[in-house]
Amino acid sequence: MARYTPPLRDMQFVLHELLEVETALEALPPHADTGRDVIDQVLAEGGRFCAEVLFPLNRSGDEEGCHYAGDGVVTTPKGFKEAWEQFKAGGWPTLTCDAEHGGQGLPMAVGIAFQEMMNSGNQAWAMYPGLTHGAYDCLHAHGTPEQKALYLPRLVSGEWTGTMCLTEPHCGTDLGLLRSKAEPQADGSYRITGSKIFISSGEHDLAENIVHLVLARLPDAPAGTRGISLFIVPKFVPNPDGTLGARNGVKCARIEEKMGIHANATCAMDLDGAVGWLVGEPNKGLQAMFVMMNAARIGVGMQSLGLTEVAYQNSLDYAKERLQMRSLTGPKAPDKPADPIIVHPDVRRMLLTQKAYAEGSRAFAYWTALQADIAQHHPDADARKDAEDMLALLTPVVKAFLTDNGFLAANLAMQVYGGHGYIREWGMEQYVRDARINMIYEGTNTIQSLDLLGRKVLGDNGAKLRKFGKLVAALIETEGTREDMAEFVNPLADLAGKVEKLTMEIGMKALGNADEAGAAAVDYLRVIGHLVLGYFWTRMARLALDRVDSGDPLYRSKLATARFYFARLFPETASLIRSARSGAASLMDIEVDLF
Amino acid sequence: MARYTPPLRDMQFVLHELLEVETALEALPPHADTGRDVIDQVLAEGGRFCAEVLFPLNRSGDEEGCHYAGDGVVTTPKGFKEAWEQFKAGGWPTLTCDAEHGGQGLPMAVGIAFQEMMNSGNQAWAMYPGLTHGAYDCLHAHGTPEQKALYLPRLVSGEWTGTMCLTEPHCGTDLGLLRSKAEPQADGSYRITGSKIFISSGEHDLAENIVHLVLARLPDAPAGTRGISLFIVPKFVPNPDGTLGARNGVKCARIEEKMGIHANATCAMDLDGAVGWLVGEPNKGLQAMFVMMNAARIGVGMQSLGLTEVAYQNSLDYAKERLQMRSLTGPKAPDKPADPIIVHPDVRRMLLTQKAYAEGSRAFAYWTALQADIAQHHPDADARKDAEDMLALLTPVVKAFLTDNGFLAANLAMQVYGGHGYIREWGMEQYVRDARINMIYEGTNTIQSLDLLGRKVLGDNGAKLRKFGKLVAALIETEGTREDMAEFVNPLADLAGKVEKLTMEIGMKALGNADEAGAAAVDYLRVIGHLVLGYFWTRMARLALDRVDSGDPLYRSKLATARFYFARLFPETASLIRSARSGAASLMDIEVDLF
Repeated sequence: MARYTPPLRDMQFVLHELLEVETALEALPPHADTGRDVIDQVLAEGGRFCAEVLFPLNRSGDEEGCHYAGDGVVTTPKGFKEAWEQFKAGGWPTLTCDAEHGGQGLPMAVGIAFQEMMNSGNQAWAMYPGLTHGAYDCLHAHGTPEQKALYLPRLVSGEWTGTMCLTEPHCGTDLGLLRSKAEPQADGSYRITGSKIFISSGEHDLAENIVHLVLARLPDAPAGTRGISLFIVPKFVPNPDGTLGARNGVKCARIEEKMGIHANATCAMDLDGAVGWLVGEPNKGLQAMFVMMNAARIGVGMQSLGLTEVAYQNSLDYAKERLQMRSLTGPKAPDKPADPIIVHPDVRRMLLTQKAYAEGSRAFAYWTALQADIAQHHPDADARKDAEDMLALLTPVVKAFLTDNGFLAANLAMQVYGGHGYIREWGMEQYVRDARINMIYEGTNTIQSLDLLGRKVLGDNGAKLRKFGKLVAALIETEGTREDMAEFVNPLADLAGKVEKLTMEIGMKALGNADEAGAAAVDYLRVIGHLVLGYFWTRMARLALDRVDSGDPLYRSKLATARFYFARLFPETASLIRSARSGAASLMDIEVDLF
Repeated sequence: MARYTPPLRDMQFVLHELLEVETALEALPPHADTGRDVIDQVLAEGGRFCAEVLFPLNRSGDEEGCHYAGDGVVTTPKGFKEAWEQFKAGGWPTLTCDAEHGGQGLPMAVGIAFQEMMNSGNQAWAMYPGLTHGAYDCLHAHGTPEQKALYLPRLVSGEWTGTMCLTEPHCGTDLGLLRSKAEPQADGSYRITGSKIFISSGEHDLAENIVHLVLARLPDAPAGTRGISLFIVPKFVPNPDGTLGARNGVKCARIEEKMGIHANATCAMDLDGAVGWLVGEPNKGLQAMFVMMNAARIGVGMQSLGLTEVAYQNSLDYAKERLQMRSLTGPKAPDKPADPIIVHPDVRRMLLTQKAYAEGSRAFAYWTALQADIAQHHPDADARKDAEDMLALLTPVVKAFLTDNGFLAANLAMQVYGGHGYIREWGMEQYVRDARINMIYEGTNTIQSLDLLGRKVLGDNGAKLRKFGKLVAALIETEGTREDMAEFVNPLADLAGKVEKLTMEIGMKALGNADEAGAAAVDYLRVIGHLVLGYFWTRMARLALDRVDSGDPLYRSKLATARFYFARLFPETASLIRSARSGAASLMDIEVDLF
């Protein structure tokens, strides 16, 4: 009944036509030979794996959930382990990993498309490799040569999986409060004791070993975030040759009952003198963890993009098939007892909202991934710096804007189904439940907005934002002379001007009162989200206009979707700006007792 | 851990101070003696029942759900039947029913407060009496004297419960397609055959009999909605003295697995030659059903208001207790390891959004209920007509605006909890799942918006809307001279002017193309929602300003919340109006194949 068809044509449009990744990658030595053939093959075969292996396990995994068998043992739903074996056999975990450690070395700009498709297929399943890749990134950046040699090849191959153990019962956002302790041992290892909660993929039966990356405090570490160190704590302590040694003192105490992502084990982990090894420098654990957090945040955006796409596809099918009422302008299917509901304007609004967010976000996110590749591999330092800045600026936007929109989109998909959307059978309510977590974990969307406005924008007096502004200005200048582009360029230029003023205004107010930034941040992030999406929809509209006569229906679809986006979604900025400008007083003047 | 405290003081503020219901009710003969004492007693005792009996069963009911035991037998979760017995013993089902049939005859303006509290306590449970009251309303309006004598006292007492059997697998919104058949019998009864789905409270173990109100077609009935008749189909056919006779041929085939409201049995019902009796005139069943649909739609609004209130209370508690990070303006609880999260501006935004929607909706909904009382009982025909018009105009707004906001509010409450909100344990994710259905059933929110814009506004060339506009204009004129009211009156006046223009504009465009109304309707309804809420927040602000020095902290709280509403929520209208004005083209020009 339900289906997932990998959106290969749209992915190709974004990668080959909009971003021209092959050209961009030519400048990056390790990726210079990534040809279109390779990319298209990864998309096609990866899409097949996600649609044929992961997607069929999505609903059954939600229904069954993970099982806690007692004594730290967790089993995943039926089929999950077999899918993991296929994943390994196909070489999929190695996709974007370093060739030095057994990876295929493909750029993130390609890997991100596979990430999207895994999440369209099965978000809960995709979290197991997702966390593993995060652990890979972190050790790749901060591990000693010995740690890398021991752990990376096994994380790359999918023999072992990884986790991030940050949260404790009394602290999630505020990691400065964390209490887990690490006692140094004579042999250079540490004994780690503490309680962690909300550890995704914390325990399971997919892999023979699990590599936990754990934040804990050394004795006499400074209080707060400057006294946190990072440790490798493997489930089984590996021997130097990689064979498994003793069971370590890190154990799953329970798995949480959650709203969604039932098939991913969210574990409470007890560490009781578990053996661990320091990663990076003492007391610099949070910085080391941030390496993996940026990628993880983009990964969460991809979870929501994946859900948006699959929810859209299914609600579109339903809207074409479900017969209910006649069109307001007269019967469109007079031979049938009623018209398909896609004739109704508001059903179209709900579908096009999903479509515009899916396609706009795809362009935005893939471009961001390309910035990550450039930041890592461009031979020119200035080019690297520019790309780093774009990545730093826009990572919180990918995370928060895409996940807010993903939840909105999943809800609209469900609404298209009417009462049937609320029933488990059709699968739509699962997307709503799964999408909901994405607004919370890896830093709530409020935290993302404070990161954007406080750290990334005001923190450097707008320098990074001005860099993105230059891209927008260049586009406006290039396209502003074309009459057929005015419907896109004019609102974009209008918003770009308003963003500049809004940023200045908030910055000035925040100098006098830091709460002014906190009060405006969430609205501000959505404004920036629309500036970015408006930029990409303008670029896509330009391509579509130029190619619309080619016969490929994609361009007509793109153009219509761009028009919808500017007509119906972009105007949200008018309210957001008003709300952002309204200041902190209406929030802060009310005494706590008057709530 | 979780709690529900009936918001008695705010209810009293709305009923006694804002609406001055005692004075209004003096004009209505059956309610002339409804004194403040009676009202306050109902609120206090009703609140106690909801908080002490219903609320403790809310989470356990969700966890356990209803059970289908096979052969049509459904049992409700543990404690539900006992709560129903207490409900009956306390006389609560009789509250607003006609004294002639055993009711207490209280006005809807009072009953609605009890409805709100039942839903704060337990939405799934409250649906059993909710549907029963709907069946009561329908038979009260359309039943023969014999039908009334037989059924009403038992529905009023809670001995029997009721349902609405409308939806069939192939038709929900489009009842014109329904296929269930009614064959007349020699004795004046009918034999009804068909399949119904999504029948809330369709089968259960709370009461000895269930009175189904079933839509079906007579032989040779005209096609479409003009060929639908309404029938009473009791689970057990009652003898004339009310004792139970034979088990009727109406049986629950299964209960649905749903996203939420697990403790309410959503039944697929098979009717196999079930005995029924016609209610009202042949082929006028839909009109008869509409009597109960208006009350049901307001009831759905009350479900969301109830959830908004209880979710707010709990997220407020959490925000006061959870310590995480320091205030951006320096420590507020220096003696603690971190500040309570209520110091953070965005947490306050999330809390105040819930609060402003809860309190604003309470004023709006209770006022609407008072209009229902006036429409039914005022001796003056013009007064009745005015109230009827307000009720007709604003019922879809109560339904859609309150349920959209209720879902938003439940999600914000959950977000305040961070990761803990996603875990079942804290109860917040249940509110999100429960609140979600309210946007769908009793007519999706899109259907409500078409009812508002198409039927209620454009259908009489804006006459009803102008009536409401006069109330707004009168308020603006009275309060517009007070400088301290300018911050409320000015935006309200601005929006009132814009609504007038917007309505004209859409009306003109819709004359040429009916899809223009369909394209604008959802945005339009939210604009009207804010006009109404802005009107009530302005009235409440005025009262609060006048009484703020009384020492009662309620007035300072009201004033702060009114300021928040106008600063942060009301500006949504700017975007809505732009989007509504953008026209149908961006929705309708795209061919189906290009989606």
